[in-house]
Amino acid sequence: MVTEAYRRLIEDGQAAGRGRGGTVVLAAPVSAPPPAAAAPSPVGAVFTDDPGPGVFDSLRTIPARVDLTPGVPDLAAFPRTAWLRAERKVLDRLSPTAFGYGDPRGAPAFRDAVANWLARNRAIRVSPDEVVIVAGVAQALGLLAQVLRHNGISEVAVEDPGSLGARRQLQGWGMTTPPVPVDGGGVVVDRVRAPAVLLTPAHQFPTGVVLDGRRRRELMSWAEAGGLIVEDDYDAEHRYDQPPVPALRSMLAEHVCYAGSVSKLLAPALRVGWLVVPQRYFHETVAAKREADLGNAVLPQLVLAELMTSGELERQLRLLRRRHRRRRDAMIAALRRYLPGATVHGAAAGLHLMVTFGPEVSDVDLAAAALSRGVKVQPLSWHRQLPGPPGLVLGYAAASPGEIETGIEALAGLMP
Amino acid sequence: MVTEAYRRLIEDGQAAGRGRGGTVVLAAPVSAPPPAAAAPSPVGAVFTDDPGPGVFDSLRTIPARVDLTPGVPDLAAFPRTAWLRAERKVLDRLSPTAFGYGDPRGAPAFRDAVANWLARNRAIRVSPDEVVIVAGVAQALGLLAQVLRHNGISEVAVEDPGSLGARRQLQGWGMTTPPVPVDGGGVVVDRVRAPAVLLTPAHQFPTGVVLDGRRRRELMSWAEAGGLIVEDDYDAEHRYDQPPVPALRSMLAEHVCYAGSVSKLLAPALRVGWLVVPQRYFHETVAAKREADLGNAVLPQLVLAELMTSGELERQLRLLRRRHRRRRDAMIAALRRYLPGATVHGAAAGLHLMVTFGPEVSDVDLAAAALSRGVKVQPLSWHRQLPGPPGLVLGYAAASPGEIETGIEALAGLMP
Repeated sequence: MVTEAYRRLIEDGQAAGRGRGGTVVLAAPVSAPPPAAAAPSPVGAVFTDDPGPGVFDSLRTIPARVDLTPGVPDLAAFPRTAWLRAERKVLDRLSPTAFGYGDPRGAPAFRDAVANWLARNRAIRVSPDEVVIVAGVAQALGLLAQVLRHNGISEVAVEDPGSLGARRQLQGWGMTTPPVPVDGGGVVVDRVRAPAVLLTPAHQFPTGVVLDGRRRRELMSWAEAGGLIVEDDYDAEHRYDQPPVPALRSMLAEHVCYAGSVSKLLAPALRVGWLVVPQRYFHETVAAKREADLGNAVLPQLVLAELMTSGELERQLRLLRRRHRRRRDAMIAALRRYLPGATVHGAAAGLHLMVTFGPEVSDVDLAAAALSRGVKVQPLSWHRQLPGPPGLVLGYAAASPGEIETGIEALAGLMP
Repeated sequence: MVTEAYRRLIEDGQAAGRGRGGTVVLAAPVSAPPPAAAAPSPVGAVFTDDPGPGVFDSLRTIPARVDLTPGVPDLAAFPRTAWLRAERKVLDRLSPTAFGYGDPRGAPAFRDAVANWLARNRAIRVSPDEVVIVAGVAQALGLLAQVLRHNGISEVAVEDPGSLGARRQLQGWGMTTPPVPVDGGGVVVDRVRAPAVLLTPAHQFPTGVVLDGRRRRELMSWAEAGGLIVEDDYDAEHRYDQPPVPALRSMLAEHVCYAGSVSKLLAPALRVGWLVVPQRYFHETVAAKREADLGNAVLPQLVLAELMTSGELERQLRLLRRRHRRRRDAMIAALRRYLPGATVHGAAAGLHLMVTFGPEVSDVDLAAAALSRGVKVQPLSWHRQLPGPPGLVLGYAAASPGEIETGIEALAGLMP
């Protein structure tokens, strides 16, 4: 059991959970930067208007006092003890043959667990045989791009604003990615001009908009007329006020390629996700996964299956929601206090907020200036192809309330 | 410590090592088949003359009493206790940021460990910064195919006989794979007609031939004249009589793309390997890995780093060599006894033997007949594009001496 005082210490960045090794109190309230593998990139070289595919890697090598990069959950909350306990259980009963080459779709026990998870949490009905375990949504998009190209689709429309990482990933696999605007109701369906569209309907990245009922209906008509939806359900489980909306896949199975992962539930470093495609793409998807890497590693899949079936992952999710909610509240309070002129978007769910400013602000320059003062944020314009107000995408889930306040205060001092 | 009696029990398939859970004595001396994810393929559909890319997956779904599939080490010897101990150590000291997105090349600590491993065991000098951690040699070949195609190379010659799996993998990534004959000295260098060649010089698959001095010199001239070598060092560490020959990469750094993995040292199910390329391909290789999956999962890398730096992996390798050697001897004895007419190749190293027969034998029919009697082997002709004597590729490392004898005896009963 984690006591409340201990949890607070962790949230303030002054202690790190260390599984069986006990708690270690850190010297400084701000967490240390990750070790740079090579010389860090100069800040000016990273913050350009047209960042390349390696931009997030370059950004990662630059140390920061406060890291508000979006897209990661509270990493200090990773359930180290439960993970190790589950892994011991798995190793105690594993047949030697399981250490050999396996099904490229993934371990049967984990595909079962994922199918159940999707049914319970996302209203998706899928047979475990149809689930393909992948190395995160990034790999899912790469596999899909290969399959779609084999099927004559070389264009996937993307939301605007929308994830730079996802767009660059699709482009890396030869796709063109025309933008479709997003408004308060979600993606503007009648502006989709491509045969396929990549969507984040449960919690649009980065705006936080939930696709509304009218747009859902429009999307269903569009899909039934032959359109293909790629649903990136990246943080659907992280709603604070009400249960998440059902996945599009739950309503339109034969028109939706659905991808999710444990990156926002546990840790991106696990590189585990799942992909469910319409039947007509199934065999090609499995073949693409086989050609990619012969299938994901087995041990982590079986540990995850154990965490899912034992209820441990749902407990973790409840813990995360409480912790994230507190951090979101800390960020909103800091924004109100230090940046009262900014408009805050997408506060009802997820791991980040989006803020927008008046047109006089260059968000790329602001993010560069912030980083040179030790605060890492992403400029909203990176996630745009179409013109729109400048802003920032601010991750709160992996930073303590103290770090969040420090970071937002520093940003305020840099505003024009 | 494992006692001798216990080890014998395990080798005879009557006990399974189960880490902290103690030893469990199994009911039957022959190990159970892996659970089939779907209905197993019919034997006749698998054993064709031109097996497709999914053939190994189809073959895996068919249960067998005795599995002599090559390419896997003794899976019952996986060091479960040491693995779990190392993972606890890793989790006890890991910084929370390590659970986030990381360097697509892999975890720095593991790249250090791999660079040291390659220096100690394979005479390769490489900076950890140049090592790219990949999901096994299969992924390495896929990434390389992408990089080579960007550089105008769409043809990689392959050894004949040579690995069907590697050939299908390259073909899956758009490469043509013209065959080059292998004789008693290794690959016949002056028959290479492609700009690149995939080689297994330390222990040629499946013949077991070690590339001799003259051929090494010819290969060096060929490479220095512009040829590119892809070195698949799949089981180089498994020599029984003398230390392995140095890797080609150790002599020709700028002409060799080098790939290795833990699949034959520990378990294919880990899906961890490494790729070292000439400098001119480095950035494209890292970009290809990023686009594939953003990098391998971190925890298993750090566990492997711990096993490598603590000396545990070398201890495991010494244990495996003793166990494998005994199994090889059991297979040779069984072949002498039951199949005295067969010619045995490649007994000095590795995890498998190759046997050849007179031209009256159809090895595909023989393998099909064997499987319908519960014995799984691979026909040599699968691993050929050029004509040559029929034969079988017989893995001994993952089968107990008792299973090996049963399997070879069954084969003998099926010979024409």
